[in-house]
Amino acid sequence: MEILITGGTGFIGKRIANHLLQAGSIQLEGEQPRPIEKITLFDAFPGENVPRDARIEVVTGDLNDAAAMARVTANADLVWHLAAVVSAAAEADFDLGMRTNISGMMVLLEALRSRHSRPRLVYSSSFAVFGGELPPVVTDQTAPTPKSSYGMQKAVGELLVADYSRKGFIDGRSVRLPTITVRPGKPNKAASSFVSSIVREPLAGQTAVCPARKDTQVFVASPRMALAAMMRAMQLSDQTIGAERTIPLPGITVSVGEIVSSLERAAGPEATGRISWEPDAVIQRIVESWPSRVHAARAAALGFPSDTDFDSIIRAHIEDELTPA
Amino acid sequence: MEILITGGTGFIGKRIANHLLQAGSIQLEGEQPRPIEKITLFDAFPGENVPRDARIEVVTGDLNDAAAMARVTANADLVWHLAAVVSAAAEADFDLGMRTNISGMMVLLEALRSRHSRPRLVYSSSFAVFGGELPPVVTDQTAPTPKSSYGMQKAVGELLVADYSRKGFIDGRSVRLPTITVRPGKPNKAASSFVSSIVREPLAGQTAVCPARKDTQVFVASPRMALAAMMRAMQLSDQTIGAERTIPLPGITVSVGEIVSSLERAAGPEATGRISWEPDAVIQRIVESWPSRVHAARAAALGFPSDTDFDSIIRAHIEDELTPA
Repeated sequence: MEILITGGTGFIGKRIANHLLQAGSIQLEGEQPRPIEKITLFDAFPGENVPRDARIEVVTGDLNDAAAMARVTANADLVWHLAAVVSAAAEADFDLGMRTNISGMMVLLEALRSRHSRPRLVYSSSFAVFGGELPPVVTDQTAPTPKSSYGMQKAVGELLVADYSRKGFIDGRSVRLPTITVRPGKPNKAASSFVSSIVREPLAGQTAVCPARKDTQVFVASPRMALAAMMRAMQLSDQTIGAERTIPLPGITVSVGEIVSSLERAAGPEATGRISWEPDAVIQRIVESWPSRVHAARAAALGFPSDTDFDSIIRAHIEDELTPA
Repeated sequence: MEILITGGTGFIGKRIANHLLQAGSIQLEGEQPRPIEKITLFDAFPGENVPRDARIEVVTGDLNDAAAMARVTANADLVWHLAAVVSAAAEADFDLGMRTNISGMMVLLEALRSRHSRPRLVYSSSFAVFGGELPPVVTDQTAPTPKSSYGMQKAVGELLVADYSRKGFIDGRSVRLPTITVRPGKPNKAASSFVSSIVREPLAGQTAVCPARKDTQVFVASPRMALAAMMRAMQLSDQTIGAERTIPLPGITVSVGEIVSSLERAAGPEATGRISWEPDAVIQRIVESWPSRVHAARAAALGFPSDTDFDSIIRAHIEDELTPA
């Protein structure tokens, strides 16, 4: 099996790569396990702590470079398309978001289409496709009404993946991700970046800024669940997925205040004291436009796992990121 | 007022132009009536029976020609974006549909954005954004799940119009059109083209082919209602439209058999005898993928009118197209 991961030097890309390298093989539903021969990590940035392995190739480049996309897709059997300009960045620079999140994605899809071998693709979408006046609980049937350019671009991406799949150009599936927290590493330009920062930085003895009010509700999933979802979405057969190609993922709903309480239970008041509260109206508006209560029936039926509570998410972060291997 | 109509030499474009020319002015909600100074009909084709008037300019060209789009949008206050590769054509030639219905539309939107004057745009979308397993009645809240490339491209167009409007680049509104029937002129490459042909051709003493079964349900609106909707969508103020920029239009649900019965009431069995029944599985599948029962609550609340029955639609067609002026 040859694997392509766009956005591959980002944290989820690296988790998928490490998981595949350790497993040594991947078993798709209805098929025998097949060895992992090569993993191409395609990204705009070389990244840090990229897995070192003879099977790994890091390729830096631009999704809009059709020749580069032809090269990296040439032998790819399985593709995770994670590359994106994130929410606050796509809102601040509309052209950049359009160029990467729509035009670049279309170049990738065309490269895969030209393969004529119907490569399987998992697309990382987002609950940011929802916004504005939403029902009390967002379900698999709720119509996307994005209120951010990032959300609009992700909704367009879902539509493209579905139609390229229906046409038989690819075997695509889109997973709608909750806010993934606790992300390792540094803050990024996602409007939701603070949801990780306010846990990660205090646990590491550093200060963090919280731009949102304590009563702000967020819908989150852990990096472990994100990895499990990325694997499950790739493993399910074409037949199991069926005609509808978008799978909204499960997660848990917590307020910023509850996150802080979880942090205090894990690391005491000296940790929570490292958070400074600096309201940012733009961030508050974007985050509040996203749904906070979600019923992900289809994902549950398809065997996607879910987190149980925020205390466990913090414990997993400490195990995965702060405990010497 | 300067007006731009893309797809302007098509039948709805010409109806809008004729209506504006006869009215001589347009009154937008909350504003004084303003004279119609110029109407640019932009189209890939020169068209037939284009209105002759000093205020009309026909420009043939390609939506993807950024220089041409800059010219035709340079002074446009109001834009109807009707140009599209229609359903069966977009299904037969995926690249052509993508190029016109997505890439070309993006060129138009960028030209309007560069104006910095927030031109108002009405976008002609379609109930083809729906497909597959649908609820018994499609409502304003039903999530688009297109099962044709045309429907996917229209859903993408709606998302673009909404986000360009939210960002303040344009004042856009999308109207989701039912199948418009009875269309004048000749059959086109829309999968729904037969819904007009089986009435129009027999009334004109010609034969028509029906590729769909008699029990096939279709959701339709008359050209008169389409024109009224196009005008209403343009006239409503930004504030009245609000944050949600897509307006699914009302229509009526009829079976192909009921259409034929209406035709027989209007023109007798010699008319219906001119229909030959030649099932086409591709057309049947596309048409059946569209919703047939729709509750358009928002459009009703916003004052969009609706047809009442198919007999009236046939009478209007006879008055508008077959009665000497």
